[in-house]
Amino acid sequence: MEFMTDPAGIEARSMEIIAPHLTGLQLSPAEVKVYSRMIHASGDPEYAPIIRIHPEAIKAGCQALSAGCNIYCDVEMVRTGINKNRLAEYGGTVQCLIADPEIAAIAQNNGITRSMAAMRQFAGQLDGAIVAIGNAPTALFEVLDIINRTNIRPALIIGVPVGFVGAAESKALLHETAPVPYITVLGNKGGSPIAAATTNALVYMLEK
Amino acid sequence: MEFMTDPAGIEARSMEIIAPHLTGLQLSPAEVKVYSRMIHASGDPEYAPIIRIHPEAIKAGCQALSAGCNIYCDVEMVRTGINKNRLAEYGGTVQCLIADPEIAAIAQNNGITRSMAAMRQFAGQLDGAIVAIGNAPTALFEVLDIINRTNIRPALIIGVPVGFVGAAESKALLHETAPVPYITVLGNKGGSPIAAATTNALVYMLEK
Repeated sequence: MEFMTDPAGIEARSMEIIAPHLTGLQLSPAEVKVYSRMIHASGDPEYAPIIRIHPEAIKAGCQALSAGCNIYCDVEMVRTGINKNRLAEYGGTVQCLIADPEIAAIAQNNGITRSMAAMRQFAGQLDGAIVAIGNAPTALFEVLDIINRTNIRPALIIGVPVGFVGAAESKALLHETAPVPYITVLGNKGGSPIAAATTNALVYMLEK
Repeated sequence: MEFMTDPAGIEARSMEIIAPHLTGLQLSPAEVKVYSRMIHASGDPEYAPIIRIHPEAIKAGCQALSAGCNIYCDVEMVRTGINKNRLAEYGGTVQCLIADPEIAAIAQNNGITRSMAAMRQFAGQLDGAIVAIGNAPTALFEVLDIINRTNIRPALIIGVPVGFVGAAESKALLHETAPVPYITVLGNKGGSPIAAATTNALVYMLEK
């Protein structure tokens, strides 16, 4: 069986195939890059009409990354998917506490998810940083609650939790009420590769 | 905003919401578990009609896991998503070589993807093991080529690479020609969470 084996060629051809799915959406060149990576990561062009990018999101995210901000994730799969070598060139790191035994104990004692407890623990560190949530609606609800109760303001929230319990609701709340820039996907779809791909799209836009 | 925060409650409610999407598919109880976890991981009920499970796949996978087989992955995100603690109770480990510098050099020298080079390196280790591919069509093509050229026979191939270049073709080849049990998804959709969720569905079926 004949098939492409060259990584750069595969990526270029993928982007060519995705492009027609974005026609009519009136996207900026930077938005096209973000949309394309989200669709590439899901294999699902039906993401195109449900992606929502705040007008300041890409600029704010790139500025924060250039300044060396950290990225705070809900789950390890998001951390794994982010290009940490490229990020490190600007001084940023990727943080995740879901596997921390102390966080597990706090979650258990409070009857909440570990990713929610992790966001509560990060709290002030989220100020000026990027939040990347690819799995847990509860983590996104918690970040929105922190913003609502405090002066903590992430530079950008990449909020694409997935599933049927709270995912659509948490992302609608992000889209409709967040006083900070965001990138999200309406409805039930999302996931760790979508969060990582969105983050990487911004990282790849940076120029040294 | 009111929302569920109890992890067990969230999972139970998710499965209730997914159940109606599986009616009419004539699935066994074990197949329902696999389908449900794949849909849960994607937030996308449109997976239901495109999932393909070989009649021997779940039994073969569970037997191999019970016997302590290893799981060989194409990318680190799949390894990250697999419940390694539960797997370790049976003696199995999760292996991934994509970040190995030697594999990177082999890939570069041969103009192939790193995940393809990694599968070529695993080769004989795949015999009797589980292969879990969530990202790279080239890795799945390589495994099918190894099977075609040799007597190496994985116990089960979980083959759900994603994207627009080779993903649908590699999965169709798996579905139509593989002489070993498989679980796959037709078309462009797939991804690391789908591969990990499918693997975990089998791990959670084991009883000590």
